[in-house]
Parts: sequence; structure tokens; C-alpha cells
Amino acid sequence: MERTKFILDENDMPKQWYNIQADLPEPLPPVLHPGTGKPVTPDDLAPLFPMELIMQEVSTERYIDIPEEVQAIYKTWRPTVLHRAYRLEKALDTPAKIFYKYEGTSQAGSHKPNTAVAQAYYNKKEGIKRMTTETGAGQWGSALSMGCMFFGIELKVYMVSISYHQKPYRRIMMETWGAKCVASPSTDTKAGRDMLAKDPDCPGSLGLAISEAVEDCVGRDDTHYSLGSVLNHVLLHQTINGLETRKLMMEQADAYPDIIVGCIGGGSNYAGMFLPFVKDKIEGRKPDLRIINVEPASCPTLTKGPYAYDFGDVAGLTPLLKMYTLGHDFIPPPVHAGGLRYHGMAPIICHLHRLGLVEARAEHQMGTFEAGIQFARTEGIISAPETNHAIRVTIDEALKCKEEGKSKVILLAHSGHGHVDMAAYEDYLSGKLEDYAYPEDKVKEALAHLPQVPGA
Amino acid sequence: MERTKFILDENDMPKQWYNIQADLPEPLPPVLHPGTGKPVTPDDLAPLFPMELIMQEVSTERYIDIPEEVQAIYKTWRPTVLHRAYRLEKALDTPAKIFYKYEGTSQAGSHKPNTAVAQAYYNKKEGIKRMTTETGAGQWGSALSMGCMFFGIELKVYMVSISYHQKPYRRIMMETWGAKCVASPSTDTKAGRDMLAKDPDCPGSLGLAISEAVEDCVGRDDTHYSLGSVLNHVLLHQTINGLETRKLMMEQADAYPDIIVGCIGGGSNYAGMFLPFVKDKIEGRKPDLRIINVEPASCPTLTKGPYAYDFGDVAGLTPLLKMYTLGHDFIPPPVHAGGLRYHGMAPIICHLHRLGLVEARAEHQMGTFEAGIQFARTEGIISAPETNHAIRVTIDEALKCKEEGKSKVILLAHSGHGHVDMAAYEDYLSGKLEDYAYPEDKVKEALAHLPQVPGA
Repeated sequence: MERTKFILDENDMPKQWYNIQADLPEPLPPVLHPGTGKPVTPDDLAPLFPMELIMQEVSTERYIDIPEEVQAIYKTWRPTVLHRAYRLEKALDTPAKIFYKYEGTSQAGSHKPNTAVAQAYYNKKEGIKRMTTETGAGQWGSALSMGCMFFGIELKVYMVSISYHQKPYRRIMMETWGAKCVASPSTDTKAGRDMLAKDPDCPGSLGLAISEAVEDCVGRDDTHYSLGSVLNHVLLHQTINGLETRKLMMEQADAYPDIIVGCIGGGSNYAGMFLPFVKDKIEGRKPDLRIINVEPASCPTLTKGPYAYDFGDVAGLTPLLKMYTLGHDFIPPPVHAGGLRYHGMAPIICHLHRLGLVEARAEHQMGTFEAGIQFARTEGIISAPETNHAIRVTIDEALKCKEEGKSKVILLAHSGHGHVDMAAYEDYLSGKLEDYAYPEDKVKEALAHLPQVPGA
Repeated sequence: MERTKFILDENDMPKQWYNIQADLPEPLPPVLHPGTGKPVTPDDLAPLFPMELIMQEVSTERYIDIPEEVQAIYKTWRPTVLHRAYRLEKALDTPAKIFYKYEGTSQAGSHKPNTAVAQAYYNKKEGIKRMTTETGAGQWGSALSMGCMFFGIELKVYMVSISYHQKPYRRIMMETWGAKCVASPSTDTKAGRDMLAKDPDCPGSLGLAISEAVEDCVGRDDTHYSLGSVLNHVLLHQTINGLETRKLMMEQADAYPDIIVGCIGGGSNYAGMFLPFVKDKIEGRKPDLRIINVEPASCPTLTKGPYAYDFGDVAGLTPLLKMYTLGHDFIPPPVHAGGLRYHGMAPIICHLHRLGLVEARAEHQMGTFEAGIQFARTEGIISAPETNHAIRVTIDEALKCKEEGKSKVILLAHSGHGHVDMAAYEDYLSGKLEDYAYPEDKVKEALAHLPQVPGA
């Protein structure tokens, strides 16, 4: 029988992260200071992040060493398994070969600890005692709770209100690991209080939760802020997954992907997978590799947004990032995939999209759950609602292979299990799940508030 | 650095289960027909189970081949990882070496699929179209839902009412895999209706849910019943875990356990771990091996029950099993570890206890959650409430090693994650968790109803 799965020995786990900035055909546009319009300096960011992460943010070194302390924690759950989806292939009657790298076996049930552990480590090293962060569906908040637990750092999490109430289990996970979690908008910050005054029933958004977490950090010497996606150093840490996968596919599975599929909210899960492969595309070893970013149709950043400088948060506290955006004060509809409800996108992914190296597709909630159920009823894994977006496109591409009679290799970045998202599955199974249209008018309104770049 | 974890290659996964019945110093007492008092025959059991499982129930072959179709499904998540708990050891400042085999990475999040997949396979092979079963906390019901999904069998699950309401996520998992789940007592069976007439607020029990599932099966040619624990063939299937672990400890970790710890409800998880090791004890290779069964103080079957013939279910529909029992109509207090709320115990474990080959300990709910939190805050894994019972004793034994200055090897059978049990953690963290005393009077009352063995 052919192998069902592939895994590296823990001693063969990559010891360095891969930094795409070394290999970009054009450098990333600079991050700008919103007051001056000039590129931010490391000192500008020092109140928020430890210097080693700031240096990673702008580094052009191709490989960056993973500290031994981080490797030791990684090994409590990594390397993770690459599966061949034989049963899904058979159900679809497709000649495509479907592989998925499954990040759901981490203690937090997702890919997020890959950067959570690294960020907690560098903060600890700089003497930081307390951290703040935001979270959507709770995957990031729970992962950073675990990361901070490993290094003895106090943590406060601002969790998007709709998810806080829809997904209490993730909050309790955070508390189990010792963190404090509040619903955002909260009364603990000015940004939260302002929003509650405007709309007491505000479901919250990642952008707003970021504002609260940043505000809670600024001006406290013992506290740093942490972002679970979007930024270059976050994507860097996630490349551990793509590096493992590339090695497994080439050395064990003897298959190189024709298509790589993943879901994007801020982009770190999927970029962590595809960046080590996009290098092969840039350098001409696999020029026809297709890299498909999948986003919610109700929050279609890459497929509908303009490429512009915008804030990362609702209140406009962050530096200006060049990215596809739906406007920093756009509040996405309350789809269950809380981790994909973000107005912007990782600048690295946006840049690669601009350069034509990656593509994007938007999917409706209903179809993603249908795909998730088909995956659960073939491969057995119940997936996070975010991941279901990528599964939808994986299935569609496999069916296209069937139509065309082509035996392509499809690689799915499977970001985590859905065991704490069962309320979403209940909505789907009981026929209560709603689709949300693209809120064009709201996006238009938000885009009217795009910041002016001083001096531009 | 020393290895953090140990795992077999999927091609080295055991291809046979281990049957302790080949090596028992005395044979098991027979299972009796409640009407005649005579040993049950395979034909008596044929309405409930496929003949191959009935034959496994009484087999004395030492090794039984795992069918290739079952191996193929096992490989979607097995072999599982043996971890060294360095961080817990350090936190306890103990010279003990703590290992844990973690079954929480299966798609269902527990050890239960090991037998669910096998049982569904043998039923399918015999042409069965529909199955019924009971479930406590939902681990078994969800696992059999997955098993039946893999082989295209319809499933109806009777879920203990208190867990059905406390743990809706497990029910939705069952539905996601395509099964139907109702709260027990239900109005779908006579046993359920009788209980509801007596006590409309009855929290249910495993014993009662078994009555309902058996009643729903008997008299329907297309339907078989399935039990997730207790019976010999269930323990047999679970030995895949102990066989993997023994091989890993001896060939990779170079450590043989001095103490093995696991939680017991019906006994299958823990027996699956220790049976391949108890053979070494029986045959004198490790005469001082300690095997500690951990049960809830509120349902202390092995530590307080008499060794007697009793029914496996509340209504008295099953054959009579010789076991330690608290009385078949005893309804255990509603502790969160729903999978441990059972009046009886696997006859194999009871027999080994009778022979002095294993020992038992009862733990209060509060202490088990305290241990679970310590495990989560060191190893990162949030464990099922059932597993926390075993973690409590693991920690206590490690602390005893510290007192005595002994570097013993402790092996913990870690049965699964607690991601769908977060409501229980919330109770603990918010100070709402109750302990339940041993309900001595209720047990005395139930023991007064022990069945008479005809002709005895």
C-alpha cells in the first residue's frame, strides 16, 4: 500500500526560517509613519515590539536561525504530518493527487503557535513581563496564551465580540493557559469606549481589537504588543510549516505541487506554507505553480480592494501599510470564520499578488461548510471554518482536474481543527447558516476614509 | 538535546492486536445468560454483534490480525506520539522520568476510534446497515460516528442526558460525521420512557443509555449494537496503543515503565495501554511493575464495589458479567468526566485486580482539574476531564519519587484532548466546580438489587 502520511524526524526539523525578502523581484514598499509619511524607523516600533522582531521585519537575510529555546518548544508538537487525501480523491473520483499538511495537532489546535512561541520568546529575552494582543475566532489569542505560558509572560487578549460570544471555548482555553480575555469593543480602552458609544451592539472586528490592544500597550514600559498575522516577522515564523512540507513532498512523497491552496485572513498561515514554494516560482524552477489565496466573499480584500496605504487597525494607531484593503474602519459581516474577518492583508502577500505571483478567490460561507462536511465525511477531520474556505477551492480544483482529465498535485494548507467551532457546524447542519453578500456600500464608505499619506 | 518525542514509522505500526486471554494465569469467569445462569453462547450474542467480534470476545489466540482495511483507516492518524514530559518534570522538580502516549491527535480527539473503526468494519463485513450505541461524555459516540462514516453505516447514538446538555459540541461532531444523536433517557425506547416516568429530570447514566441502545437493536435484522468499552474485544482493539508504546519505550526511549497510570470508566483506554505490559509482569520479566487504575471518588467501582455478577446496563438487558460493580441501577453523580460514570468495569481489569496484578485509586474531581491545569501550563495540552484523573496520580507519583529520591519511569496513558470540554474548565476556573462525595447510601441501595444468578 502507498503511504498515507509523511513526517520528518524531529531532528530533521528546519533550524532556520525562510525570509522571502531576500528573494523578492522588487523590494516591499516601505511601512510609513502616519504623521510624517516617512518610512518608520526601528525606534518608532520599539514601544510595541522587541528589537529582534523589528529587525526580522526589515531583514533581507535569506535564512534566520530559530533560537534553540523556540526549537525546543516547537518539538512539543512539531514536525507536523503531511497527509495524502486518498479518501477525498476517491469520493471526488478525481485523477488529482491531493495532499494536506495538517496543523491541527498542536496543543492549540492550529498553526498559530508557530509564531506565538517565537514572539513570546523574543519578548521574554528583552525582559518584557506583560503582552497584549487581539484575536478573531480565538485561534491566535489561545495560541499566544500558550506561547506566553511557556515563557512566563502575563497576557491580555482583546477578542472580537461576536466570536467571544459565539466561541466561548477558545476564551476558556486562554484562561486555562493563564491569560485574561475580554470582549472587544471593551470598556478598558478609549478606542473600545468610543465604539460602544457609537454602536453598543457592535460585533467588533479584528481592526478594532488591534486598536484596543495597541492602546493598552503604548505607554506601559513592561508591556509589548503582539500581532498574530499580517506582519513580515509573523509570516517568517510560519515558514517552518512550508519548509517542512517542501522537504516532505520532495524527499518522501516524490511529488511537487502544481497548485497550493490556503485561506487568508491576515495571511500568515497560508504564506507560511507557500513562501518556500514561491521561491521556486520566482527562480524559474516551477514557473507554472499556481498559488491560490482563498478569502470570504463577504470580506474580499485581495479580490475587490484597492492597493493602497492604510492603517492596520480601526482607530488608526498603527503605521501605514501598503496593502489591498477594504478600508480600516470596515467591519466585515459576522461569518463564522472569525479569523478571516480582516479589512487588510499581509503586505508580503499583497506585493506578490501585485507582481502576479499569486492569485486570489473569494468563497461564500455556505459552500465552504459544504466542503468542510465532505472533508469530515471522507478524511475524518472536522476543520476550522477558516480552513473550510481552502477545502472548498481544493475540491473545486480537483473536480476541474477530473473534467480535464489531468492528474495535478494539489497541496492544501490545513490550518487547524474545528472542535471548538462546532456551533458553526450546528448552524450549517440545522439549516440556519446564512450567506453574507459583499457589502459593497459599506466598503465604499470605508474606502472614502483611507488615510492621506503626508507629503504624497 | 534529548528527544522530546518518539513515534513509529507507519509501516512499523503493529499488524496484530494482543489478546491477554492467551496469557491469563486463570481464565476469565464466564459471561452468564441471565435467564438460565449458563454461559452465554455465540448464538445468544448474534442479535447484537457480528460473529467475528463474538469470536474475538472468547478467543484465546495470543495475537489477532488487524484487517488491512482497518489498518488503512488507522493510518489516517496512527501511529501516535510518545512524549517525554520534560516541562512537567521540571515544574515538579522530580527525579522521575514522565512519559505520556497522547491519543488526542485522532480526528475524534481521543483513543476511541481504535475500536470504533474495527467494530464498524466487522459489522460492514457482515452486511449490517445500521448500528446503535450509547455514549457518556460523547467521546465514544463521536468516535463511532466517525467509524461508521468510514464504512457507510447508519448510526444512532443514545447520549447520557447530562453530557448531551453540558457538552453539545460532541453531539454536533456526531452529526457532522452523519450520525443521529438523542439524549438518554429518551422517549424512543421503553427503558427510556420508564425512567422518564420515574424521574423526568434524570441526568442519565451509561448503564441506562446502554439499555436504550440495546433495546433499539434487538429485533431489527439490519441493526447491530456496539459497546465502546468493557468487553474483551473492545480492550483487544485498544491494545494497538499499548503495543506501539511498549515498542517505542524499549526500542527508542530506552526506558521501561516502573509505573503505568490511566483512567478507567469502562476500562478500554487504560487496558489498551497496560495489557501488553502486564504480560511482562505475569511472565516475570518485570514483576514489580505497578499498574494504577484511576477512577472518580464519586463512582469508585474497583476501590469500593464488590466482585459479583451484574448486568452491564440499568434495565438488565445484557448478559451477566463478573465484575466489580456499584449495582447496575446506580446512577453516578454528574461529574464532568462523563466517560468515567459507569457502575461496572471491564471484566478483564476486574479479573487482573482480583489476581493482584493491578491496583486502583479513586480521585476527587477538584484535584483532577488542578492537575489538568498544571499539565496544560507545562506541557501545553488541555486534557479531557477523564484524562485529568490519570494526570492527578501521575503528578502524585512523581512527587513521591521526589520525596524518596527515586528516578522512576512513569508512563501516563493520555486518552485525549479537552477542547470540547471547556465548559468543565470554566467551572473550575470560576470556582463553580463541585466535588461529589461517595454516595454510599445510593450504592448500598443499588447493590441490594444485584441480580440472582439462576441455579447458583
